Amino acid sequence: MGPKPMSGSSPPQHAPHPLKQTGMVVWLTGLPASGKSTLASALRRNLADASIPACVIDGDELRAGLCSDLGFSEADRRENVRRAGELARFLAAQGLVAIVALVSPYIRDRQSARQRVPLGRFFQVYVDCSVEVCRQRDPKGLYERADRGEIPQFTGVSDPYEAPIAPELHVQTDVESVEASTKRLVEAVRTALGYR
Amino acid sequence: MGPKPMSGSSPPQHAPHPLKQTGMVVWLTGLPASGKSTLASALRRNLADASIPACVIDGDELRAGLCSDLGFSEADRRENVRRAGELARFLAAQGLVAIVALVSPYIRDRQSARQRVPLGRFFQVYVDCSVEVCRQRDPKGLYERADRGEIPQFTGVSDPYEAPIAPELHVQTDVESVEASTKRLVEAVRTALGYR
Repeated sequence: MGPKPMSGSSPPQHAPHPLKQTGMVVWLTGLPASGKSTLASALRRNLADASIPACVIDGDELRAGLCSDLGFSEADRRENVRRAGELARFLAAQGLVAIVALVSPYIRDRQSARQRVPLGRFFQVYVDCSVEVCRQRDPKGLYERADRGEIPQFTGVSDPYEAPIAPELHVQTDVESVEASTKRLVEAVRTALGYR
Repeated sequence: MGPKPMSGSSPPQHAPHPLKQTGMVVWLTGLPASGKSTLASALRRNLADASIPACVIDGDELRAGLCSDLGFSEADRRENVRRAGELARFLAAQGLVAIVALVSPYIRDRQSARQRVPLGRFFQVYVDCSVEVCRQRDPKGLYERADRGEIPQFTGVSDPYEAPIAPELHVQTDVESVEASTKRLVEAVRTALGYR
């Protein structure tokens, strides 16, 4: 049997949850180009194939929508992470697996997001990759732009990244293959959801 | 057959939508105490009973979470409506019926929310009730507080409410019974969703 559904925001007189599904927040943190979005998409597809409703909350998409009013100051970046957490919390309360793919460099901000979700419903994944390998990948040319000084306070170049102390899962995308990281991620999340 | 699923935010290479469900934004606008939350809850329960995943985005809940950084200046109130719209859009893109219950007094802000959603996927409901009846109800004592000057810029007292010109549905909660308004709302939304 799976875990109990998380307590949501609906008043108790409501009918049983329409999705009949256990919501959870899966939070992928790591340097830019560490592989968060790749893993998030693979996880979402895998869950979808098993009829587990899941969605991806991606940094770029947030910036284009819910957080379009925010810049890149420390305060704005923290607010960006806060809103990602609130969005994920809301989605998880609706029974979805909300997969967040966000640099989210500071421990305290990730901790705040965790504390807004019922115990055991926040699954943090450290997407670990050396900054050297991230630089080699650099699919969006961000490291290059940061080196030229075009992006101030860029995590891994001019701003610190605080690695999780005890994440629920630690993948090393500069050591493992994408397939290996994906397999471990999928198995760990499905276990946490009570599906195996 | 129901309408086609709305185009979501997922890249096209993704698997078919996991919820196999047509998302939609149902936006209830009206004066404070006009009956928006009551109708939203009733609609959500009705859809849930028919296994149509739906959720309510409520003003109070937004203020406690996603919008906890906002005050009640005009700029902040507009930003509150904008974020409600973005949240609803995201949920609808995941296949849920996102029911927004929010005063949202200005036409331009509701129009902005509509324009962020695919054509035909935004269903606006004008929850019409005279300010006199709203004042009599006043379940949270807000009108009373506004009259005492404790709430500046309170819609219906010291701030204008711009009624929708051509809403998808117009209910009159000061004339109809709750049951009658609910019945019309449920039938109209189910028709828009393609369920009858």
